[in-house]
Amino acid sequence: MAAETSTPVRFGIIGCANIARKVSRAILLSPKYSTIVAIGSRSVDKAAAFAKNNGFPASAKAYGSYDAVLEDPEVDAVYIPLPTSLHLQWAVLAARKKKHVLLEKPVALNVGQLDEILAACESSGVQYMDATMWMHHPRTPHMKDYISDAHRFGQLKAVHSIFSYNCGGAEFLKNDIRVKPDLDALGALGDAGWYCIRAILWASDYQLPKTVTALRDVEFNEAGVILSCGASLRFEDGKLATFYCSFLSNLTMEISVLGENGFLRVHDFVIPFQENVGQFYANSNTKFGDLSIGVEPAPAECIVKTDLPQEALMVKEFSSLVRKIKEFGSESEKKWAIISRKTQVVVDAVKASIDKDFQPIDVVY
Amino acid sequence: MAAETSTPVRFGIIGCANIARKVSRAILLSPKYSTIVAIGSRSVDKAAAFAKNNGFPASAKAYGSYDAVLEDPEVDAVYIPLPTSLHLQWAVLAARKKKHVLLEKPVALNVGQLDEILAACESSGVQYMDATMWMHHPRTPHMKDYISDAHRFGQLKAVHSIFSYNCGGAEFLKNDIRVKPDLDALGALGDAGWYCIRAILWASDYQLPKTVTALRDVEFNEAGVILSCGASLRFEDGKLATFYCSFLSNLTMEISVLGENGFLRVHDFVIPFQENVGQFYANSNTKFGDLSIGVEPAPAECIVKTDLPQEALMVKEFSSLVRKIKEFGSESEKKWAIISRKTQVVVDAVKASIDKDFQPIDVVY
Repeated sequence: MAAETSTPVRFGIIGCANIARKVSRAILLSPKYSTIVAIGSRSVDKAAAFAKNNGFPASAKAYGSYDAVLEDPEVDAVYIPLPTSLHLQWAVLAARKKKHVLLEKPVALNVGQLDEILAACESSGVQYMDATMWMHHPRTPHMKDYISDAHRFGQLKAVHSIFSYNCGGAEFLKNDIRVKPDLDALGALGDAGWYCIRAILWASDYQLPKTVTALRDVEFNEAGVILSCGASLRFEDGKLATFYCSFLSNLTMEISVLGENGFLRVHDFVIPFQENVGQFYANSNTKFGDLSIGVEPAPAECIVKTDLPQEALMVKEFSSLVRKIKEFGSESEKKWAIISRKTQVVVDAVKASIDKDFQPIDVVY
Repeated sequence: MAAETSTPVRFGIIGCANIARKVSRAILLSPKYSTIVAIGSRSVDKAAAFAKNNGFPASAKAYGSYDAVLEDPEVDAVYIPLPTSLHLQWAVLAARKKKHVLLEKPVALNVGQLDEILAACESSGVQYMDATMWMHHPRTPHMKDYISDAHRFGQLKAVHSIFSYNCGGAEFLKNDIRVKPDLDALGALGDAGWYCIRAILWASDYQLPKTVTALRDVEFNEAGVILSCGASLRFEDGKLATFYCSFLSNLTMEISVLGENGFLRVHDFVIPFQENVGQFYANSNTKFGDLSIGVEPAPAECIVKTDLPQEALMVKEFSSLVRKIKEFGSESEKKWAIISRKTQVVVDAVKASIDKDFQPIDVVY
């Protein structure tokens, strides 16, 4: 394989967010595919400490600005874990500097901003991908196979997803970047709801809903940032999806997908309970027993092992695409931009429904 | 215990519905508490065959009418598995004849009808209970303990429930009593949605929602009977509940209950996968591990064994209440009427929201 013998993609990290620790580890887990050559922070000391504490190669450079990372000719690609409100500026600039962009979610404050980012990537011919890790777990295509099976699953009828975690404490709810209106104005909808919406779109083969209606009620913090909300999504073919996302409830990561002949559930879709294995549960052609006692067949537990954690597989997939562009002059892979944009369009529609007193919002792509 | 030495409650069965086979078996499973003395059908041969095929005592009488069962002085209590549209007539008549009433769900076509049934029971001093079996499984109070625990679960935030089964086939969808507008006009909402609504009310300590909004879309059969639908329920305290019920999807029986500090899920709440054991899953104070890898603690599987199936425990509970009235002149236990009425009120609100183009409906008890 050409990919195995070619040079690893050289990442620059922009910002020292907590999530960057996990993604840095992931970048370093596949040294044939990816490495880290630079990190930038507003403080050079913070950048240097981050590099040291996270096992960066000794040669990795620590910069006291984000610009310096973008100016570094050794940097092929950037991972951007900045607060959402800074994505537009830095992702666009990165693309203009011909850096491939791995962008933390939520990718933008609205689809207008995302379109500017995507246009900059397109115009520079760089790869774009959002950092939705679970898309890259080998469990995900296994689950997709199951819900695509006409006999075992049949027509998709309903999807429900929950992603919540308990930020636990007044301090977070006031001061964390995820709930600051000037940093992450979408709050729980952008952060946790992003995953639920992606799960629904994934289950629907990325068909967009016709209308989106936020569910009453929504919880806000004092600054008006969403702390919990839900929505129902109505599709052209009559299937129905609902989700609930929250910063105020126990850590819960559910997808339930109901079909004519089957039912799939997964309880740790965002981040698996264990790093090297992912479970899901599949019920097919389930019937009550005689006298409606018990059911047959019993639900099946499906176990999918993985040598690399999902975030490392994400980096590997992104790096493969970058190398195709860099080494073979390939076009960038557009599917990640399309999926990202569809997710953002639905996030925006939920937000619009909340802002318009829970009216149904037509989804326009 | 007085109850152990007193006479078993003598049941009459009104109608030979399929579900009556299961409940007849349940009545006969606790011979110290309950027995069957009569069955009535529009055809005496059908009644006799039913008695024979379902192991009724040889002394049990087979009648060619429902009236005959109600006229039989040996009958203490009736189990009524008739189509919903016949409940008003026969439950009221049973109560007037001083028979205690175990009524199959959905209990009535609307709360107005149920109120007539409840008034008749009240006025005759007979016990009323609806046949929602899962309420009586010993798992149910265990689950309630968990979601009532301030530390392990905390404030209730969101509930989702699904009950669906695949009736599989044009024949059912046209001709089964559950989808005939003159027999069970509420269709999947009355039959399957009843359980979901009960689950939501159960989780909420029977607090009623403030408003109920049906979700777009609903599937109907040619006669206009609901084949699948969903709704969102909004509560005074901001918690949010959703459900989905269907005759067109794989057999699925889910409750997910999300709290501030915990999450409960059960996958077979309506009828357990196995007759003598019920599982549920409880996650408490779940946190991501370091670098957001994995979670701690792992979800706990809770297993509750039962010697008697839930339907037999239901009959036993009903019979105990009947004996208290019969032998000690006690008042009837009102909680079952109240729970039943609240469930019906929400069923009605969902129906009203569907009929009013998915507008939110204020819930009035």
